[in-house]
Parts: sequence; C-alpha cells; structure tokens
Amino acid sequence: MPEGQTLDREELMTEGLQKILELVEQKKYFRARDELLHFNAVDTAELLEEVTEQAGIDNTVILFRLLPKDISASVFAELPPDDQIKIITAITVREAEFIVQEMDFDDKIDVLEELPANVVSRILEKTPKSERKLINTYLNYPDNCAGSLMTPDYISLSKDWTVREALEHIKREGMDAETIYTCYVKDAGRKLIGIVSLSTLVVSDDDERIKNLMHTDFVCENVYDDQEDVASDFTKYGFLALPVVDNEFRLVGIITVDDILDVIEEETTEDIERMGGIIDLDDSGKDYLDMSVLQHAKNRLPWLIILMIAYVFTGMIITSFEGTLSQVISLVAYMPMLMGTGGNTGSQAATLIIRGLATEEVEPKDFLRILWKEVRIGFTIGVVLSIINFARICLFDRESPMVALTVCTAMIGIVMFAKIIGSMIPLIVKKVGLDPALIANPAISSVSDAVALSIYFMMAHVFLGVG
Amino acid sequence: MPEGQTLDREELMTEGLQKILELVEQKKYFRARDELLHFNAVDTAELLEEVTEQAGIDNTVILFRLLPKDISASVFAELPPDDQIKIITAITVREAEFIVQEMDFDDKIDVLEELPANVVSRILEKTPKSERKLINTYLNYPDNCAGSLMTPDYISLSKDWTVREALEHIKREGMDAETIYTCYVKDAGRKLIGIVSLSTLVVSDDDERIKNLMHTDFVCENVYDDQEDVASDFTKYGFLALPVVDNEFRLVGIITVDDILDVIEEETTEDIERMGGIIDLDDSGKDYLDMSVLQHAKNRLPWLIILMIAYVFTGMIITSFEGTLSQVISLVAYMPMLMGTGGNTGSQAATLIIRGLATEEVEPKDFLRILWKEVRIGFTIGVVLSIINFARICLFDRESPMVALTVCTAMIGIVMFAKIIGSMIPLIVKKVGLDPALIANPAISSVSDAVALSIYFMMAHVFLGVG
Repeated sequence: MPEGQTLDREELMTEGLQKILELVEQKKYFRARDELLHFNAVDTAELLEEVTEQAGIDNTVILFRLLPKDISASVFAELPPDDQIKIITAITVREAEFIVQEMDFDDKIDVLEELPANVVSRILEKTPKSERKLINTYLNYPDNCAGSLMTPDYISLSKDWTVREALEHIKREGMDAETIYTCYVKDAGRKLIGIVSLSTLVVSDDDERIKNLMHTDFVCENVYDDQEDVASDFTKYGFLALPVVDNEFRLVGIITVDDILDVIEEETTEDIERMGGIIDLDDSGKDYLDMSVLQHAKNRLPWLIILMIAYVFTGMIITSFEGTLSQVISLVAYMPMLMGTGGNTGSQAATLIIRGLATEEVEPKDFLRILWKEVRIGFTIGVVLSIINFARICLFDRESPMVALTVCTAMIGIVMFAKIIGSMIPLIVKKVGLDPALIANPAISSVSDAVALSIYFMMAHVFLGVG
Repeated sequence: MPEGQTLDREELMTEGLQKILELVEQKKYFRARDELLHFNAVDTAELLEEVTEQAGIDNTVILFRLLPKDISASVFAELPPDDQIKIITAITVREAEFIVQEMDFDDKIDVLEELPANVVSRILEKTPKSERKLINTYLNYPDNCAGSLMTPDYISLSKDWTVREALEHIKREGMDAETIYTCYVKDAGRKLIGIVSLSTLVVSDDDERIKNLMHTDFVCENVYDDQEDVASDFTKYGFLALPVVDNEFRLVGIITVDDILDVIEEETTEDIERMGGIIDLDDSGKDYLDMSVLQHAKNRLPWLIILMIAYVFTGMIITSFEGTLSQVISLVAYMPMLMGTGGNTGSQAATLIIRGLATEEVEPKDFLRILWKEVRIGFTIGVVLSIINFARICLFDRESPMVALTVCTAMIGIVMFAKIIGSMIPLIVKKVGLDPALIANPAISSVSDAVALSIYFMMAHVFLGVG
C-alpha cells in the first residue's frame, strides 16, 4: 500500500528533532528556534515535548521564549500540563500574562485549572474584572461536565438582522475558526431561540432576515450534563458545535467538536482501563510513562485485593471436594481449562454488552432478548468445545470415557452459565445507575470460576460417583 | 445534578414514538407523518427505526414515502443499512433515483456499497456519465482507507482571486455545511498548494488575495491511508476537515470531522472486542441484537479453540506434578487464586500498553522503560498480595507456614512474570506490524496460567520438598 503524506510528515519531524537537538547541544538556540518555525503549533509542541525529554526542561524554556509572540500562545496550549507549569513558573509574570491572554478561552481555563492558586492570581492581576469573574465561574464547573468544556467565544446575532448585517458583525468580532461556524440567536432574556450556520449566511441572499434562516429545532446541552453524553450527541448528530444553556435555557457558552475528540479519547481510555481491572484513583489522566510505580500499583491493587476475597470462596469449594479430587486426581488437570474457558466466555459476553451499552446499541430493557441470545450462543459454543475435548481426553490423554463425559457436560453448563453471568451483570450495573465498565472482566472471571468448580464437581458426582 | 435539554429531548422522542405508533395502528398515516415532522433528520430516522422494530418495515415504507421530498434524502442517509435496502427495493425506481441524487456524495457511496449490483445500476441509469465514473472510482477504494471516507464536494479557489471573488464563488457553488468551511487552492496540475478557512475569508478584507491568506503548512492524507491513522490526525490537530491527495499529490477529495466521529466509534468497538477475545470474522459491524446466534458463536469460537490448545499444556504440567499434588492435596485449593491473579495482573498490564499504543502514549522503542516499570510494579503488587495471603493462609485456613511460604513466594514470582508477559507481548505484536489489540486478554491469561503453575510447583519443591 503506498504511503502518503502522513509518513513524510513523521520523517520530517524526526529529522527536525535531530537537528534541533544538535543545535541545542551546541547552544545555537536561535538556529534551533528557526527549525521549529517550519512546523505548525501542534507539531512544534510535540517537538518541544521531545526536547524536554531528551535535553531537559531548561532548554525547552529557552526555545519557548525565543518563539515569536504570535505563535507562542498556540504552542503553549498544546503542551502537556507538566511542561506548561514548568514554563509558566520559569518565565516572567509579564510573559505569562501575555500568553494566557492570547490563548482561546477554553484552553486558558484548562491551563489555569492546573496551576497553583498563587500563580493564577498573579497572572490574572491585570485581567479586566469582568473577565476575571467569568474565568472564576468557569473554573468552578465540575470536571467532566459540559460547563468545563465550553467557551464563551461565540457569535450572537439578532433575529431581525439581515445577512449583510450579520456578516459585518462577524467580521468585526473576528474570532477563532472553530467558534464562528455556527451563530446563535437569543431573545431579549438571553434565552436561546435559534441557530444559523456561517455556511447558510455565506450562500444566502444579503437582504434575507436571520429569523427566516435560523433553525429552531436545534440540539443543546445543559451546563451540568456529563461530558460523555455531550460526546455521544456529537457522534449521533455530526455537529461542529453545540450550544450550552443553563437551567433557565439561557445560552452560556458553546462546545466545539475539536474539544470533543479529546473527550472521546479520554472517556474511551477510562472505559477500557476499567474493563481491564484498572481504576484511576487520582483521575489524573497522566500518560503511562509519566505515572510513578507506586501510582500504577495503587490503581491496579483494588480489584486484585477484592478478587482475593472471591478466591477464598473458590478455595473453600475445592477444599470441600478434596476427597473427590484425591480419589480421581486426574480431575485436577482439567480444572484450569474449565475455569479459564468459563472466564473467557463470560468476558466475551461482558465485553460486547458493556460496549453495546456505551454506544447505545443495547439497553437494560433488552435484557430478555439478550438473555435468550446468550443462552443459545453459550449452548452452541459449549457443544463445539465439548466435542473437541471429548476426542482429546479419550484419544490423546487416554482417560476413561466417564472422565471425558464429566469434563464435557461440565463444559456445556459452565459456558452457558458464564455467558448468562457475563451478559446480565453489566445490564444490572447499568440499571442501578453505575458505569457498566466498572464490572471489570476480572470480576466476571472470578464469579464464573466459582460456578465452574461447583458444576464440575457436581458432574464428577453424577458420572464418576465420587464426592 | 440538574438534567438538561438532552433528557427533555429523550422524553419528547418517547412521547412522539408513542403517538406515531398509535396513529400507524389506526392507519392514520398522514397524521403520523405530521408527528415525524417535529423532529430533525437524525431523530426522524431513529423514530422510523423504532417503527420498523415495533410495527414492521411496511409501515416504515409508507411513512417514509409520505415525507416531504426535501427531507426524505437526509432521513434516508441516517437509517440503518438493512432498512435502507428494504425501503429502496420497495419504492419506485424514480423515487429511489431522486433520493440517491439528493444525498451528500459520501452518504450516497455508503448506500450504494450496501445495495445489490442490479439495483445500483438501475438507480444510476439516469445519472450523468461523468458522475457515474466518479461513483465507480469511489466504490472501488478499499474499505477502511481514507478514500472510502472522502467526498468530492469541496470548494476550490484560485490563489490569484480576491476574497470578494472567492466568497462569490462559494455563494454560487452553495454546498453543504460541513464541506465549505475549509477551501482548497490547487495549482495548474491539480496539485494541492494551500488551504484557507471560510472564517478567514469572512473576516478578511474584500480585496486581499487568496495567496496571501492561505496556509501552506497544511496536513493531508493519502487516499490509501488507513482510516484509523486519519482519525488520529483529526484528534491530534483538531481539524474540521482534511484534504486527501493521490500519490502525485493531486487533491481528490476531503474528509470531514462528522464522518470521523463514526470511524472512531467503529474502530474503538473493534479494539475493545478484540481485547475481549472476539473477532468479527465477517467485519459486518452489525449491532449486537441484529447478529444471529450462529454469527455470534463463530466470532467467539476462534480464540476459545486456540486457547483449548494452550490448556493442553497447562493440563500436562499438572499431570506431571500429580505426585506432588496427591502428597499435599491442600495445594490444589490455591491453584485458582494463583492462576487467576496471574491472568488478571497480566491483563491489566496488557490493557494499559494496548491502549497506550493506540493513543500513541507509548511506542515499541520504549520497551526497556516499560519493562523496568512493570518489573517494579509487579514486585510491589506481589509483596502486598503476599502479605495479605500469608495472614489468611496461616490464620484463616490454618495451614502450615511452609504452605503459606510456598503460595506467597510463588505469588510474587507469578505477578512479576505476568506483568512482563502482559506488557511485552503487545509491544512485540505492534513491532511485527499487527494490531496489538489482537493479543486478546484471554491469550495473556493462558500464557500466564502455564507460567503460574510452573512457578507454584517449583516453590512447592523448594519449601515443601515434594515433587
């Protein structure tokens, strides 16, 4: 498959980084800065991040201060929080003020949230009081809600303006790319009454009135809506921006799709980690490599310790059947397979249902249809695996057919039970109002372990007359 | 937490559906259609989908045919493929032609891909030859590549035009919202030389030349680039649209962010399912409930059968230590815990690394740093779990301290090995060029099962002198 521009870009970045690191090594900072200027803001930030990693934050600070003023703010917005804090504490208050002022409002809030309070108040000293008040309101929205994602930089139009007046207004305001593609129409009480897209304005007749062009069946979010729900509305409707209103339906800000892409990545990572039995206790969202060994251990231990308790029961089941096992010691050899298969098939069902709930493919009210489906899937899979195992146990392991029968009937029962457990538990957790991803696959495995052993020993009693 | 507009919307939908179903029941189709007209295209499609489910496709077809012409195409584009096919085969060729003509180009391609060839050729009969050729080119791009996502509906500007000329051109072309926000500048050989956003045009002086406004450091994709890479560029740079070029760097189409949101959801689902040990053999992308029992079983069996083979080895290890086990039968009771914990800790590491690779937080070249980190994390976790278990085995189970020592030293070794296996295997798979998510967690568990048993029996030999 022919490789495109993306690769070229990566090659360019690698080459650029090489040159920059050499120049930094030789203290030729101005020439290193000139190399950086070949890249856009996102790539420049990525290069600076590499410089921090390979040559230390001090060099990054020097290079950053040499950047032209008009691009330093947008590069700064793209840096990881750690580097942002180090830079902002290393530069003068005047420089910091300038950068913070130049940033888009939503990026500004993100940066200020991370900084220590005394630094924030120093930076905001010269900010006009009205904006300081707005910033404080924004800083107070809970994390992960619509309010924490929005920007107040949007275009308001009057419903009585003509297209010409509207376009002139937009030209005067002259804001950032993402934020002017949808314009908002409010009534006298600041209530949102309609939206109109820039593309509609551009292709419409100059003398047409806004009220005749605006859509009134728009979708909007409440300022306290969960960011996950906001993201799923973006995916569902394919919008570039969504208005955010307060409880009185007054427009307070807008959310743009570029910020939602980050939310989706963040929420997906959280879901996948939870399903894998990892709970980010600090909700730090730090990168894997930036997190300390202790933090990693803390995030992974809760589930492991909870499961220890589950294993006490598994151990008790085995102990109570020790007699059975010592009579037919070969039964032990099939325990890992039966428990493992139970865990794996249960996890498969849980994975599908948890993801289906997240993408709204299935809902708790579908539980009867899901149950019936999983029972049949479990039976089909159980039978196929049993046939393979019957052959293996009789022909390869040369055990008696009764041992094979014990293992194979147990297998069918175990797979069916595991499918039921794996599919029903996430639905119950969702119904109760918790995140189904919290039912990590490890939990499904341990529940199905105990069930698997019980079924196995029951079958041993039936077919081998032991226990 | 106060609930916002999202909920109101859901309530409105539920009420609307109720009314529509009642009216359909009473054959009052025109009044049911009027109810539908209160909703936007996405919601109307969702309501029709529910009508199909609860009242049958025939009623959906009737309602669909009653929709005003100007909205029927956009509603059609939002319906699930199954319903689209049923509708298009139930309506007249003339109606079908109209709908397909009215759809955005990328939606049109999606629909035509799903339809049987004879239906496609009938619908395209009256399409101008030039467009038919273009459609055929698009239909031939492989699934999952940039070419299959793009649309040829973009705005081309000349670099010598003024802003006024450009805006007049856009007004004449008058295209769809998403596709005009970025305009493209080509040279005489159709090579892409620059991009300029509509917002720049709107806020710039009317007499300014395009060549002075356009960006030349744009990012673009090759037509054969993988859709996953395209999606990650959107997330990284936060663009609303990206240009797609062929191998000669000629502009062939653009991809808009609304289509990328669907790609991200699809790719995430694929990754999560693969990690959960499910392989979509048909790559059908069908919803959970729409897939047959047999298809579900087929997707889940491959891993389960492969793992059967792994369990043969686990069984062999146990069989060769049957002597040890029959001497100290209580050792069997701790087997599930040790194997289970090994599997769970290994899956935790694999989950973090697989997700880290997908979001480009970690790379295969980081393997030494990852290895060192996981070894320390494994040791920390192993020690914590061992202390808990030592207490439990001595005090609760009342086993001898030597049994406790066997289990606890094995635990430390098992957790460390599982962390190494879980973190390194995905890196190796990525390095080889495969999707790391294919190393499903079930696979990690079974490898660590065998390792766990070997370590356990080794420790039993050391501390208990058996085996």
